[in-house]
Amino acid sequence: MKNLPHPHSIELITTGTELLLGQTINTHLRTIAQALLQLGLRIQRQTTIPDGEILLPVLQEALSRSRILIVTGGLGPTSDDVTRPLLSKLLEKPLILHEPTLQHIRQRFRNRNIPVTPLVEKQAYLPQGAEVFPNPNGTAPGLYVTKEFFGQDKHLFFLPGPPRELIPILNNHVLPRIDALCPDRPSSALLLVRTLGKGESFLQQVIEQPLREISPNIEIGYCARSGEVDLRIILYGEETAKLDLVRETLLRLIGDVVWHMGNEELEHLIIARATQLRTTVATAESCTGGLVAHRLTRVPGASAIYLGGVVVYSNAEKIRQLDVPEHLLQNHGAVSSEVALAMLQGLLKKTQAQHAVATTGIAGPTGGTPQKPVGTCFIAATSPQGPIVQQLQLSQERDAFQYQATQHALNLLRLSLG
Amino acid sequence: MKNLPHPHSIELITTGTELLLGQTINTHLRTIAQALLQLGLRIQRQTTIPDGEILLPVLQEALSRSRILIVTGGLGPTSDDVTRPLLSKLLEKPLILHEPTLQHIRQRFRNRNIPVTPLVEKQAYLPQGAEVFPNPNGTAPGLYVTKEFFGQDKHLFFLPGPPRELIPILNNHVLPRIDALCPDRPSSALLLVRTLGKGESFLQQVIEQPLREISPNIEIGYCARSGEVDLRIILYGEETAKLDLVRETLLRLIGDVVWHMGNEELEHLIIARATQLRTTVATAESCTGGLVAHRLTRVPGASAIYLGGVVVYSNAEKIRQLDVPEHLLQNHGAVSSEVALAMLQGLLKKTQAQHAVATTGIAGPTGGTPQKPVGTCFIAATSPQGPIVQQLQLSQERDAFQYQATQHALNLLRLSLG
Repeated sequence: MKNLPHPHSIELITTGTELLLGQTINTHLRTIAQALLQLGLRIQRQTTIPDGEILLPVLQEALSRSRILIVTGGLGPTSDDVTRPLLSKLLEKPLILHEPTLQHIRQRFRNRNIPVTPLVEKQAYLPQGAEVFPNPNGTAPGLYVTKEFFGQDKHLFFLPGPPRELIPILNNHVLPRIDALCPDRPSSALLLVRTLGKGESFLQQVIEQPLREISPNIEIGYCARSGEVDLRIILYGEETAKLDLVRETLLRLIGDVVWHMGNEELEHLIIARATQLRTTVATAESCTGGLVAHRLTRVPGASAIYLGGVVVYSNAEKIRQLDVPEHLLQNHGAVSSEVALAMLQGLLKKTQAQHAVATTGIAGPTGGTPQKPVGTCFIAATSPQGPIVQQLQLSQERDAFQYQATQHALNLLRLSLG
Repeated sequence: MKNLPHPHSIELITTGTELLLGQTINTHLRTIAQALLQLGLRIQRQTTIPDGEILLPVLQEALSRSRILIVTGGLGPTSDDVTRPLLSKLLEKPLILHEPTLQHIRQRFRNRNIPVTPLVEKQAYLPQGAEVFPNPNGTAPGLYVTKEFFGQDKHLFFLPGPPRELIPILNNHVLPRIDALCPDRPSSALLLVRTLGKGESFLQQVIEQPLREISPNIEIGYCARSGEVDLRIILYGEETAKLDLVRETLLRLIGDVVWHMGNEELEHLIIARATQLRTTVATAESCTGGLVAHRLTRVPGASAIYLGGVVVYSNAEKIRQLDVPEHLLQNHGAVSSEVALAMLQGLLKKTQAQHAVATTGIAGPTGGTPQKPVGTCFIAATSPQGPIVQQLQLSQERDAFQYQATQHALNLLRLSLG
């Protein structure tokens, strides 16, 4: 993929010894990159360094390259959190008490009936002149400072490391400011298209030529995940006007595998649609082991439409909880279209839900046979035409299998809602 | 935290535009860091850059800092895979045909009945003098080159980007060579400690001083997650002999919040222990919405001990599936210790499981009251002393709440198994 011009270079520095020791996976790059992409901006470079003094030279190095720096981590109360003092050194500004932050910290501790220690209050000492972004989910606030570096204005954003603290500050404070800092960037229009069931080379063969005929400079990115492909389509300048045409063309060419144009997950679409319809949903899971239920109940408001579900791992539980006839289990095996449909019917009868899905399959690593190898999966679901069942051959790797089976189950539930 | 001396500096460069657009999460740092940590080595810095020419200056920059470089990605057949030609430029060595790689590529395509294209065969042209590591799971081999840089020998390892291709080459070829390249490194002993229920500033106040008295050079890292803290404790040189004393001291000081000394997750400990005991486990979830079941069933072998579970989001389902007495729901509310215990008892009676856990709580964002605010959670579980119930005040943020409630539920299940 060619690199587009970057009048507004953005660099990300993630600090944390735990990242370099492999204890924690670094999700900040993805979170921040996805958010910036919505604004038509991208990160040019990302660096991970340990907690400690090394941040100072790394900051100086990055300032020589980039106009906007985003730095994560090191703002907390413990001895390895050194970002605030180093920033004070970089800016040649003292750390001074920020009264609203101190009050916020004390309030959080009062709410939890925990005594505040001087260690914790340290987080309220911030470099003089820094703009402070309150942290609704933690004690360490985000910070924004500007610094002249060899005659250029540089913009530095500091965010706490825990994702649930970082994300609100990113969305509420950092993104609007970066947006305003980059006023003259070329206009662009982004279309995210989520597909399920076809590989990226198939999709490329079908869509690439027709889309290039619409806009020769169109940027088409393929992100193949486990069993699905997300398309990232970007139009630039005047060609942004062709976005609707691109959308229609895609639906014409690959509409059968597109489940969404946008960034949402299937569970959000399902809960939104079911809430709109004031209907009810239930789940019966064998091979997906509760992941379908978990995905649905992650969404706020799920309790209004999701009645509940069962995770029936053993045959005995399939019989007890869902009245699956024993002869079906004996004659066809637990992993069969007959049992998937019986699970669905038992679930519908017991819960009286209007929409439902049932999964059964072989997640592995053991349990496969020549006829039904690891990766075999049956999903039964309600549909506008009555109960349906889908047979799939999915990944032979357990985690990937459960994810893929869950995606297909949620997609059938989405289609059931119409 | 102070940075310890690193006679063998190792740096990781991950290439890939998709990483900087947030389409793919970068797992290479964790994979490679965990493997190196087992050898007592660590990565000092990690950089992500887009596909393209930028790799050459970034390599030169890294060579000026570090002795060993590991570079991932860019070895494939498409136009954005530029690592081989850039490496040829860096080394001033031509790309020449590597016959075994060509034969390997042709064989792979023959096995799949796909015609080999010149694009694919390009991957067999490798920098003269490079050591070639065969790729059992793909077409692009790994590469190892050495280069003198300002009088110092530098070691560069190149790995293909897809994890299933990278991991075997890392384990079979790269790690043994790095191990041999760093013969005189100081010995170290690593202790990972996982805790639940206390914050990092509390833990630091309790453990830091006593541990420093045992070993003044001890390295103590705190990794705070949602509602829990992982401790990373490293002893160096002769002080590695004090590891047992450190372990005992920690158990004495914070034993009540330590749930594991090691790197495993709770679900792995539970499945391993339950398998050993040949016992059975079941779950009843309201507020955790299937996440407890999902975590357990992620583990291979779960089907032998996990009977199944229910996700009972509505009161009607709590009554129907678990025989929770209606008067308990009316008098105490669904979120109460009485209902948690009734859920547990109903579950045990119906499934005949020997160990079980039940969750009920208010995940939010709505549903809270002054008496029971969002974040209130009751968890009932079996225990060696009979049924127990735990009341918790957890995060008011939905995802964090579900994760925290699940951790506490799994921990009670672990304790139940003894």
